[in-house]
Amino acid sequence: MESLNTYRTQLETYLDKQVEKEEPQQLYDPIRYILSLGGKRLRPTLTLMAAEIFGSKSQKAIPAALAVELFHNFSLIHDDIMDEAPLRRGKETVHQKWDLNTGILSGDAMLILAYQLFEQYEPALFRDLAVLFSQTAIEVCEGQQYDMDFETRDDVSIPEYLRMIEFKTAVLVGASLKMGALVAGATEESANSIYHFGRLLGLAFQLQDDYLDAFGDPEKFGKQVGGDIISNKKTYLYLKALELSAPADGESLRQLYSVQPADPSEKVDTVMDLFVQSGADKAIQKAVEYFTIKANEELDNIDLSDQAKQQFRDFGLWLMNRST
Amino acid sequence: MESLNTYRTQLETYLDKQVEKEEPQQLYDPIRYILSLGGKRLRPTLTLMAAEIFGSKSQKAIPAALAVELFHNFSLIHDDIMDEAPLRRGKETVHQKWDLNTGILSGDAMLILAYQLFEQYEPALFRDLAVLFSQTAIEVCEGQQYDMDFETRDDVSIPEYLRMIEFKTAVLVGASLKMGALVAGATEESANSIYHFGRLLGLAFQLQDDYLDAFGDPEKFGKQVGGDIISNKKTYLYLKALELSAPADGESLRQLYSVQPADPSEKVDTVMDLFVQSGADKAIQKAVEYFTIKANEELDNIDLSDQAKQQFRDFGLWLMNRST
Repeated sequence: MESLNTYRTQLETYLDKQVEKEEPQQLYDPIRYILSLGGKRLRPTLTLMAAEIFGSKSQKAIPAALAVELFHNFSLIHDDIMDEAPLRRGKETVHQKWDLNTGILSGDAMLILAYQLFEQYEPALFRDLAVLFSQTAIEVCEGQQYDMDFETRDDVSIPEYLRMIEFKTAVLVGASLKMGALVAGATEESANSIYHFGRLLGLAFQLQDDYLDAFGDPEKFGKQVGGDIISNKKTYLYLKALELSAPADGESLRQLYSVQPADPSEKVDTVMDLFVQSGADKAIQKAVEYFTIKANEELDNIDLSDQAKQQFRDFGLWLMNRST
Repeated sequence: MESLNTYRTQLETYLDKQVEKEEPQQLYDPIRYILSLGGKRLRPTLTLMAAEIFGSKSQKAIPAALAVELFHNFSLIHDDIMDEAPLRRGKETVHQKWDLNTGILSGDAMLILAYQLFEQYEPALFRDLAVLFSQTAIEVCEGQQYDMDFETRDDVSIPEYLRMIEFKTAVLVGASLKMGALVAGATEESANSIYHFGRLLGLAFQLQDDYLDAFGDPEKFGKQVGGDIISNKKTYLYLKALELSAPADGESLRQLYSVQPADPSEKVDTVMDLFVQSGADKAIQKAVEYFTIKANEELDNIDLSDQAKQQFRDFGLWLMNRST
């Protein structure tokens, strides 16, 4: 297997020349802009990696990988509008740099361009990829809707939260891997198992992100530590703390999540204490471990050598041990 | 051929049960809502009609026809946001009834649902339909972008305007017909000719719409007569009047299109006079006739009986003689 960085370098070359159309400028400039902002390119890297482990040249999976990255960036443009986010990767978001209409329309075009990338494959593969892509895309929309719904609800359950992050984040991780498997002509069973591997790992990844948002090393975590607490985001940590806390502590927590003080440092400290006292910090680490183990179990169903499977396991380890 | 109304009735049944998913409500309710607002269902009717004329049961084309209607309604939701339109078919627009975020996300979901409808066809046909759909969808986005660009430009040329309406409106008419042909297994040449027939007829249709907006019978025209003039929309009539007018009249016209008086009646009357004096009203009628003739010429390349071709011609006549 080539190193993840090699895949990434390979992808950057293609992303640079991905959108060659110039006119109308107002439609295509924002697409080139968001693709130039970088990021880990994690999802398309997974597609290339899976294709190669399943016995194909990673090259063959480039169009599918690019489709995944275009879709991901489409969802970032539209999500940033919905979240009224001014910044993305330290740079202005598309609707901020241009305007709302540009954000909507360039996002729409990106989603269509993603589908067009599959046209480089023969009909049966085209169909399999597009079917998986559509199913995933609609789930990502549903996840985003649940996420927005939860902002105004105070009765979100943990299973509901897990379904939300599963749809919003995890299914695309699974689909990215499965696309690589499909391109490489893996059996249906293997392709489905690598999908579930990615989906479960995606869940673990998102829960890890929830954990690091509160307890990560500020020097290493890419985002502001405590950001979820400051914005009153009802993450797994919060919901679990509510579940495990004594009534009085639960009430304090709810109260703290109803305010947004100008100086949030005291609030963040108190909430962190409540996360620790309730044992929610331990509970989320257990959940991360649970989903990681579940993910690795999926590998048993895959028709590959132990050595090949080990590459997926190693990737999972690398992903879960990251601190950013 | 069944009558157009029969196709429409057939479509309504399917549209009613098209979106069966209930959750998340905030995502799927707006989709059901916009589909329930009615409209002429012109585009999907074309798909059914073409399928039948090319020798298939119209039934087989239902999924493709629904995809066309879903796409059209996706573009209405997002365009209404961009145009800040409060009403659509006399009812509240989606972003008005719900909010901006709902409009964006429900629109996104509709676009994906449209692609999913093609999954009901076998791989080769699935691919042909999706390729045509993506190409058309991206052109519709480009057309919408040009339309927005033109609002702030005062040097739009007539060829630029024609390209804009071709992309924003006409290509979907062509694609609707071609999808029916593809479903019916028409030859590539016939499918392409019916596409061009529709595309040229779509151009004629949009120019006719520009004409009726100014000169239509207020009792019969569905929209407010003079609406384009009131909103300073640079239609073919306006651009042609600028081209044909004496410099002083052209200057008056430009000046009138830079203001939006509270009572627009005097402005509308003066502009209409300038349209007539310049001969722009005659010129647009000539252009409508030109594109209609060009459309009918495309039928010569189609491998069908004269009787079958006559049905397309009759449809063109019906479309162009409508007063609304």
